Amino acid sequence: AEVKKIAVIAGDGIGPEVVAEAEKVLKRTEELFGYQFETEHALFGGIAIDEKGTPLPEETLQVCQSADAVLLGAVGGPKWDNNPKELRPETGLLGIRKALGLFSNIRPAVIFDCLKEASTLKPEVLEGTDLIVVRELTGGIYFGEKFRREGANGQEAVDTCVYNVNEVERIARQAFEIARTRSKKLASVDKANVLETSRLWRETVVRVSADYPDVELEHVLVDNCAMQLLRRPSSFDVIVTENMFGDILSDEAAMLTGSIGMLSSASLGEGSFGLYEPVHGSAPDIAGQGIANPIATILSVALMFRLTFGYHDAAESIERAVKEVLDAGNRTGDIAVDKSTAIGTVAMGQLIVDAM
Amino acid sequence: AEVKKIAVIAGDGIGPEVVAEAEKVLKRTEELFGYQFETEHALFGGIAIDEKGTPLPEETLQVCQSADAVLLGAVGGPKWDNNPKELRPETGLLGIRKALGLFSNIRPAVIFDCLKEASTLKPEVLEGTDLIVVRELTGGIYFGEKFRREGANGQEAVDTCVYNVNEVERIARQAFEIARTRSKKLASVDKANVLETSRLWRETVVRVSADYPDVELEHVLVDNCAMQLLRRPSSFDVIVTENMFGDILSDEAAMLTGSIGMLSSASLGEGSFGLYEPVHGSAPDIAGQGIANPIATILSVALMFRLTFGYHDAAESIERAVKEVLDAGNRTGDIAVDKSTAIGTVAMGQLIVDAM
Ligand SMILES: CC(C)[C@H](C(=O)O)[C@@H](O)C(=O)O
Ligand SMILES: CC(C)[C@H](C(=O)O)[C@@H](O)C(=O)O
Repeated sequence: AEVKKIAVIAGDGIGPEVVAEAEKVLKRTEELFGYQFETEHALFGGIAIDEKGTPLPEETLQVCQSADAVLLGAVGGPKWDNNPKELRPETGLLGIRKALGLFSNIRPAVIFDCLKEASTLKPEVLEGTDLIVVRELTGGIYFGEKFRREGANGQEAVDTCVYNVNEVERIARQAFEIARTRSKKLASVDKANVLETSRLWRETVVRVSADYPDVELEHVLVDNCAMQLLRRPSSFDVIVTENMFGDILSDEAAMLTGSIGMLSSASLGEGSFGLYEPVHGSAPDIAGQGIANPIATILSVALMFRLTFGYHDAAESIERAVKEVLDAGNRTGDIAVDKSTAIGTVAMGQLIVDAM
Repeated sequence: AEVKKIAVIAGDGIGPEVVAEAEKVLKRTEELFGYQFETEHALFGGIAIDEKGTPLPEETLQVCQSADAVLLGAVGGPKWDNNPKELRPETGLLGIRKALGLFSNIRPAVIFDCLKEASTLKPEVLEGTDLIVVRELTGGIYFGEKFRREGANGQEAVDTCVYNVNEVERIARQAFEIARTRSKKLASVDKANVLETSRLWRETVVRVSADYPDVELEHVLVDNCAMQLLRRPSSFDVIVTENMFGDILSDEAAMLTGSIGMLSSASLGEGSFGLYEPVHGSAPDIAGQGIANPIATILSVALMFRLTFGYHDAAESIERAVKEVLDAGNRTGDIAVDKSTAIGTVAMGQLIVDAM
């Protein structure tokens, strides 16, 4: 098979620890399935600020651009929180999304059997919840013009939320395509009763829906969606929404599963290129202790295999291995009921590799 | 005592039914406490569109402006959902907020003992939850310039989010004042890692906080807040945030209490003037059947007594009456476990009036 190039960005906090386990999974996949990967490491986020003076060094971008996919650990931490904007990890995150054209963020929110009790929602409400939030990632108020000015009533700050028809159309098509492979139900979330961008969003989604007559489309206002996710999470299948609403709703959806330490995500552009990362953050409080849970990052590799490489056999092997290891009762500290029996990052990674 | 003028806007759907019960509470308050109210009814929302051709007729605004407080039922319904913007009930809602200078929306999210089980959250997570969302109501992306234009990539829509220092300062002061009367904990919610308006928001809140050294201030990013509300609702006391984030988070907070049919809200400006309304909507599906729950509207009257008139004795009497009636097992359909024993709107209203 063709050698696939993967840019590996360990990042900050627990990033390097969890990414190291994911790399063992890559190696094991080569042995078991004959696929070939070439990995190249790059600096990004806080560590890049410290070592290169910028969160997104030019050479990191080049490594990513010449790769078939990117595996990202996590970025950020209190050390950089009070830096000026150009020297903050999240500026790198926004920059890499834009530079790589990653216009779509895919976040599956699923319930892990072994973590059913970890949710703050009642198990009977959660039962059967398996949804995907498709978030537009390179438009909206995140990337519109921002500035300060002197107004009639003192200093003012301005953010601009802009969407053009093409931006909405491409994310809508992607969401419809995903919905088609699942239960053929798409909820488009907007605030069309207030925002002009939402009205453009809704018109465009409606127009695109003509090409997907097999998918049932529903429009949900963002405030109502925040409520319905709590009230009837299992009734959602695919949710598509704009950048800012997606930021809020995808975090709400992830948290309600109780499995946030286990969830993976993909950021996709045109074609098969994608950036894959765990939903959880860099957890600076437990960094360097060897106790972080590597499962979300390992499952991000499985997602990469499915969405970028089409290596469904290897993805399946990883997902099955994770399930087996959990079913056998192995737990890292974050998901252990009895913390005294918790295993570390490396032990968990090794168990999964062995079970593949 | 001075006669207090109350503008009464019944509105659409179940609005007229629940407002009628709240008016009985006003009458009973006059008898019991010697306060005097003069009510004036006005058309607003869908019914005003039907009868006057606009959701916010000039005379309605005048009735409100000459009143000491406004009691609102609910507005909107599918009948007007596809109307052009100027002929939609929510345009009236935004218009009345702006015209009356109601820059602050106060939404208490509390748990009713009898409804503990109605939440989709586990009771032990909900235990002790008693928070208030203070939402900025006349600024931000709701009221900034909105338009369409032809861009390089086809048609674009634009919304502008603007805040000036004064707008942030007055809502921040109000939130600090409220926090001071409670557990002295304020969470300010923003997206300062992305938005310029959020950076102005945070700077201003920090500056104002110097005048409230007794209140503990925490900054929470909006995506994290959407998660933490689910994970540890009882750890929040007062939450203050901008218009759009407040729309989403206050609905999430209301829903997680499981008591959404029972929650009241206040929209306040400078001085003591305020508009009071239930959090729930116009529920067109059950309108006209005499089965709507009037409690949220009745409790909105109690909130009006506290915040606008300072009639704490009468407010207390209403709140105690509601508790007694519920403790005695009386339920409307929406909160009844056994629907066959449910009582109607008028019966519930009368029981509360009798218990005052
Ligand atoms: C760190 C921040 C800029 C980022 C975002 O808001 O997009 C994060 O919350 C996310 O969801 O990836
Ligand atoms: C109807 C709509 C314009 C309104 C808002 O978004 O403010 C409503 O959701 C609310 O919260 O009062």
